[in-house]
Amino acid sequence: MKKETAELMRLVREKRPLVHHITNYVTVNECANMTLCAGGSPVMSDSPGDVEGIVGIASALVINIGTLTDQIVEAMIIAGRAANRMMRPVILDPVGAGATGYRMAMTQRILDEIKISIIKGNAGEIGALAGMGGRTRGVDSDGLDGDPVEACISLSKRTGAVVVMTGAVDIISDGDRTVAVNNGHEMMTSVSGTGCAAASVIGCYASCTNDMVLASAAALAVFNIAGSKAAKRSKGPGSFIMNLRDELANLTPEEVVPLANIRLL
Amino acid sequence: MKKETAELMRLVREKRPLVHHITNYVTVNECANMTLCAGGSPVMSDSPGDVEGIVGIASALVINIGTLTDQIVEAMIIAGRAANRMMRPVILDPVGAGATGYRMAMTQRILDEIKISIIKGNAGEIGALAGMGGRTRGVDSDGLDGDPVEACISLSKRTGAVVVMTGAVDIISDGDRTVAVNNGHEMMTSVSGTGCAAASVIGCYASCTNDMVLASAAALAVFNIAGSKAAKRSKGPGSFIMNLRDELANLTPEEVVPLANIRLL
Amino acid sequence: MKKETAELMRLVREKRPLVHHITNYVTVNECANMTLCAGGSPVMSDSPGDVEGIVGIASALVINIGTLTDQIVEAMIIAGRAANRMMRPVILDPVGAGATGYRMAMTQRILDEIKISIIKGNAGEIGALAGMGGRTRGVDSDGLDGDPVEACISLSKRTGAVVVMTGAVDIISDGDRTVAVNNGHEMMTSVSGTGCAAASVIGCYASCTNDMVLASAAALAVFNIAGSKAAKRSKGPGSFIMNLRDELANLTPEEVVPLANIRLL
Repeated sequence: MKKETAELMRLVREKRPLVHHITNYVTVNECANMTLCAGGSPVMSDSPGDVEGIVGIASALVINIGTLTDQIVEAMIIAGRAANRMMRPVILDPVGAGATGYRMAMTQRILDEIKISIIKGNAGEIGALAGMGGRTRGVDSDGLDGDPVEACISLSKRTGAVVVMTGAVDIISDGDRTVAVNNGHEMMTSVSGTGCAAASVIGCYASCTNDMVLASAAALAVFNIAGSKAAKRSKGPGSFIMNLRDELANLTPEEVVPLANIRLL
Repeated sequence: MKKETAELMRLVREKRPLVHHITNYVTVNECANMTLCAGGSPVMSDSPGDVEGIVGIASALVINIGTLTDQIVEAMIIAGRAANRMMRPVILDPVGAGATGYRMAMTQRILDEIKISIIKGNAGEIGALAGMGGRTRGVDSDGLDGDPVEACISLSKRTGAVVVMTGAVDIISDGDRTVAVNNGHEMMTSVSGTGCAAASVIGCYASCTNDMVLASAAALAVFNIAGSKAAKRSKGPGSFIMNLRDELANLTPEEVVPLANIRLL
Repeated sequence: MKKETAELMRLVREKRPLVHHITNYVTVNECANMTLCAGGSPVMSDSPGDVEGIVGIASALVINIGTLTDQIVEAMIIAGRAANRMMRPVILDPVGAGATGYRMAMTQRILDEIKISIIKGNAGEIGALAGMGGRTRGVDSDGLDGDPVEACISLSKRTGAVVVMTGAVDIISDGDRTVAVNNGHEMMTSVSGTGCAAASVIGCYASCTNDMVLASAAALAVFNIAGSKAAKRSKGPGSFIMNLRDELANLTPEEVVPLANIRLL
């Protein structure tokens, strides 16, 4: 998928897709900036009266349950249904699913009411949703009981969504096809918001192809290659997040081809 | 206006005006930090029970409709009316007006209930409010149908506010007097929040003079000169936002005089 | 307390405590990132249905009244009571208490309904709560009428909490024992969020000892030593906040011992 990744990367920058986010207030600025660095254009809107109009002009919808209010949940349902009708891809980031019954119930409600294109979570979140005893510790993942690939395949079959489990190696599956992306760097977990921003980058890529496995794999490869480059010239988490933005914006498709480590499982 | 700009810049730093923001949760941190860098002091408050007290100690009010809840709209109306009574300037940033009916209706409601001193938007937002078919694409502007200067004059005459249309060249008009500020740099659009933060800087300057055209022109000249200096030593959007903060904080009135490109139209 | 500070610093990094924040949307990202840099793990949750579950997995709770909604106040009360039952330390940051009657009333309500372990504020906030005419000017402090040490002791005796008054010299008192930490740097006030983030670092430390005076003093010494190191290599507020994150993450207990300036009053 190296070539397809580079081609999709070119297409995203050419189309500059508008990505509608309904997300938490903790990392929302990182999501906005990383969307811009990835070549997209961010729009954040979570007023129930506003979201349908925004979905109409956007190319993808990213839903993140990090911090919820009744209004935000209502907006997610309205926006998600509109995106389904208008055939926009919907990316769900079930932050902390498994950590509390509330987050699990909210995630389940979203899955019940909206057709999700891509579910992106860490091992704890995906494990919990797959019923494989995922343990979530706040924003961190303590892993899951059982095989990560099986968890992705199982959750994908149950929901119809492509499932992305991020980690040292990212796993992506649509139930039939499963790929692993091995471009991660441990510095990515040293700052707040890289997980949420990964969903933003996936949103950019998902709006430029119908292949949600390719979109997810390409987005994570590109984002993580930028992360590895940034890590090399950073002194700590503060300079890392700055350099990550710079590297993501400056990365070229030509650089990505030899570096993208995506393989079919 | 070069000399007046430098004088106003000195005055802002001397007075350190407290600027009350009721703004979106996406770029609020950038607004707070840029207010500090511009020489002001930020205070964010959007609880209906709190805003009147905050207006009482603040020198200007900045209202931004980027992400709204019923509570926030209620707080805006209470704060705006209090600011009108207490003669504090009110700056309105109608983010995405024209993109959806909801945003247009909210902007109109604010204009109906509060006397706004300065409306600051991009071509799409100002065009939409001026009834000149402004096209808004999320946070981006696709421009407007017709002449930008006419749109500013027309909207200013209708609302009584000074109208600021940001772009490659910024246009500012009170209906009679129209000026253009030509200090922009394209890097300013590569990051999230520079538009919102421009309103914060205008808020600082508007609290130190009665001339809202001067306040707007001076604030944009200073902010954009800082942006041009920052762009020169940045590797991408990540380092740019950092450098923009540094340059804005370090810029001197002496540097601004020869660089400020403000002319009467 | 130099040695105890270094030991506690080691323990925080080893335990990596999960710190639950219910905080404002202005500086929340800074709180999340500084928690990570200090060696903890942040989790933000303010949905009333979610917070009890989060308190259950967290090691400390940080409450900050910077921007409130009815939902957030409700969540604070639920979370605070749960933290009291589960014996987790609760840190209160009464942002702007004294600036408005609303903020004063909200702070008082929290103090009435929750047993607070540590109250951290600037001179204006602590002064107002201690009934010593504290003047608050937005996020800034204009100081208080009377003696800072007396204000801390008096508020501590009335509330049972350890009281931390931040400033050029930080004062910490449990009513009996009072210490001063003299590691501050003026650059810390040039950026938004260092005050809020100080409470996050205190939250990390408070979850690893029963001595709340030590936790507060050690956290402020470490945070401020990082700030002084960062200031030395920063060109302005933008690079300062980046360098502060790097320095806080990279600081070693060995470096802290000779630099920590903590003395018993």
